[in-house]
Amino acid sequence: MPMNSLLHISKFVAPEIIFGLGALSQVGESAARLGIKKALLVSDLGVLEAGWCDKVLDFLKEVGIDAKVWYDVTTNPKDLEVAAAVESYLESNCDGIVAVGGGSPIDVAKAIAIIATNGGQIKDYEGVNKITCPLPPMVVVSTTGGSGAEVSQFSMIVEKERQVKMAIISKSLVPDIAIVDPHLLQTKSARLTAATGVDALCHAVEAYVSLAATPLTDVHALAAIRLIASNLRESVACKTNLKAKAAMAMASLQAGLAFSNAILGATHAMTHQVDGLLDLHHGETNGILLPHVMEFNMISCGEKFINIAEAMGVQITGLGKWKSAEKGICAVRKLLRDIEIPEHLAQVGMKEEYIQKLSANAVKDACLVTNPRDCSVEQIEALYRKAL
Amino acid sequence: MPMNSLLHISKFVAPEIIFGLGALSQVGESAARLGIKKALLVSDLGVLEAGWCDKVLDFLKEVGIDAKVWYDVTTNPKDLEVAAAVESYLESNCDGIVAVGGGSPIDVAKAIAIIATNGGQIKDYEGVNKITCPLPPMVVVSTTGGSGAEVSQFSMIVEKERQVKMAIISKSLVPDIAIVDPHLLQTKSARLTAATGVDALCHAVEAYVSLAATPLTDVHALAAIRLIASNLRESVACKTNLKAKAAMAMASLQAGLAFSNAILGATHAMTHQVDGLLDLHHGETNGILLPHVMEFNMISCGEKFINIAEAMGVQITGLGKWKSAEKGICAVRKLLRDIEIPEHLAQVGMKEEYIQKLSANAVKDACLVTNPRDCSVEQIEALYRKAL
Repeated sequence: MPMNSLLHISKFVAPEIIFGLGALSQVGESAARLGIKKALLVSDLGVLEAGWCDKVLDFLKEVGIDAKVWYDVTTNPKDLEVAAAVESYLESNCDGIVAVGGGSPIDVAKAIAIIATNGGQIKDYEGVNKITCPLPPMVVVSTTGGSGAEVSQFSMIVEKERQVKMAIISKSLVPDIAIVDPHLLQTKSARLTAATGVDALCHAVEAYVSLAATPLTDVHALAAIRLIASNLRESVACKTNLKAKAAMAMASLQAGLAFSNAILGATHAMTHQVDGLLDLHHGETNGILLPHVMEFNMISCGEKFINIAEAMGVQITGLGKWKSAEKGICAVRKLLRDIEIPEHLAQVGMKEEYIQKLSANAVKDACLVTNPRDCSVEQIEALYRKAL
Repeated sequence: MPMNSLLHISKFVAPEIIFGLGALSQVGESAARLGIKKALLVSDLGVLEAGWCDKVLDFLKEVGIDAKVWYDVTTNPKDLEVAAAVESYLESNCDGIVAVGGGSPIDVAKAIAIIATNGGQIKDYEGVNKITCPLPPMVVVSTTGGSGAEVSQFSMIVEKERQVKMAIISKSLVPDIAIVDPHLLQTKSARLTAATGVDALCHAVEAYVSLAATPLTDVHALAAIRLIASNLRESVACKTNLKAKAAMAMASLQAGLAFSNAILGATHAMTHQVDGLLDLHHGETNGILLPHVMEFNMISCGEKFINIAEAMGVQITGLGKWKSAEKGICAVRKLLRDIEIPEHLAQVGMKEEYIQKLSANAVKDACLVTNPRDCSVEQIEALYRKAL
């Protein structure tokens, strides 16, 4: 552990967490405890069709909470979706938000909460600490083992006009209560399981090597990497493997606690731009870029890369520092191949001619500030090219 | 990691944490952010004389917060002290609490908060979840590397008449903001540094083997044991070793996050009774009892004791399971001897004739419920006798 991180001032924020099989049943009591009388239930079509929204509505009804359902949310949610949802929140006289879903519905729920009490448009809040008024109470139920949005101080919203994924970062965005019930991960497709699991891996690795990492975030980041290395394959292989689902839900949660407080790095800074332009699944883009960024970052913190290798299950005894670090990156590549994450950005629609514009935007992304290696626009371009 | 702990429902609560050298300077802004206009500043004579209260008053003044100082707090704080402090809180029209100190002032601050909004006497709240009304806002500044009170949902108050240390346990007792500035640990005596450090070790070990342990508490418990094993000796040896102080402050914090959410075990159940009767330093009593309770508990979770041994720095390669576990306990004994914690309860005033009454009370202590090995009153008596 680098001692300097114990001497600088660092902050750590986490929501109240309710975790485990059957945790969903506590959504009503949780919302009631926060004083919610009329909730906007934010979700998406997939989650609705899997039947989880109905279950949540029942639990809310049991404690006398009325709810209006809003499920018009897409992958990489857009500013216009947020604006429409806010209208629904206000028209329905809601006084709190319950979100059920993966990163997209939870990010939209946070964005609704911002506008509901702070007014304006969501783009007004892009960047760090732009929120001034307290948000309405928020309970989030996570259905994917990946986004970490259930515990994080981030909301990622695409501004349609600029085709840019905006990072909105504020302590106020940490939900009041996060509910994680591994049951809810069983209705996801193998592809979505793989993509969200890789997203969690990416959160853990980037938070661990982040310039803003602290001992508190490090323990969660390494624990997440360990859980992912030994459970993501099984979780992708079988929808009903509850042990693997539970481990991935815990991994996502711990990766979320890590990156929410340590922020991220170049992988995410680059992924956000690709997502904004091509509307891809965030986890897959992250997975394609991650090994390249790890190779680039390795020289900035070799010791940390040894620990990543160990957490990935590499036997490092007798290997030197750099060999261990390299083997860790190989282990990441092997995992990505095993769960069929594409290897090249070209496979998901990326073209050479986009690279210049995306790189110019990536160097302005808030996540690049905490990348452990300094990163010029030329270096970002080279990384995109390597991954193409 | 036992997978069953991923499947059962578990809860995790933590305050907002501000950690690092200079973190104290954020006390004013923190209190203002919670809406405090007039604070009761709860502390003790030692902390006051070290000059920390004046510093806090200055920071509060800078943001326009007025404060009434209350420092009539003793080790193992008593119910009567709480009652007197509540009167002062109400008379001075305070609307929030700032606590500066070790476990005692922070526990008193929590007790004041309970009565201020819930009324009655502190003994009415003994046990788990007896608090019904929300508490006033609370910022705590920790000055010892041990109690973990800055992050925990515990308050320990002695009922003078019964000579019993009451455990009051509720999520509401988690402060809103915890500030940990390693500078503040530099004014403690070597003996207090040793005793509070051992208290943190005891929190970490008991939380790690607790029946209510979860993956979230495990990572913090093991990280705390590792930090204590490599830094407590240096912290005791030298008041100005800031690196060791910072590591112990982080260890205390992580041990606090672990035990606050996983609860404790037989060591604390037994220590509470001795503290209540003899008014000893909690950390020393814990230190005397810990190795005996570890030996007793070992058969309930051998694997966990191997991990404790590793975290204590024992080279376990080639050793069998039970030999590793035993070596871990030896490493704890060695650490306790090196920092001059007494080895026998008789050295601190304990007598054979107290054992029966103390054992009868210990089996009723809330902490015994999560001890990993079932514990009869006869077994508790035998443990007290071994430690005598």
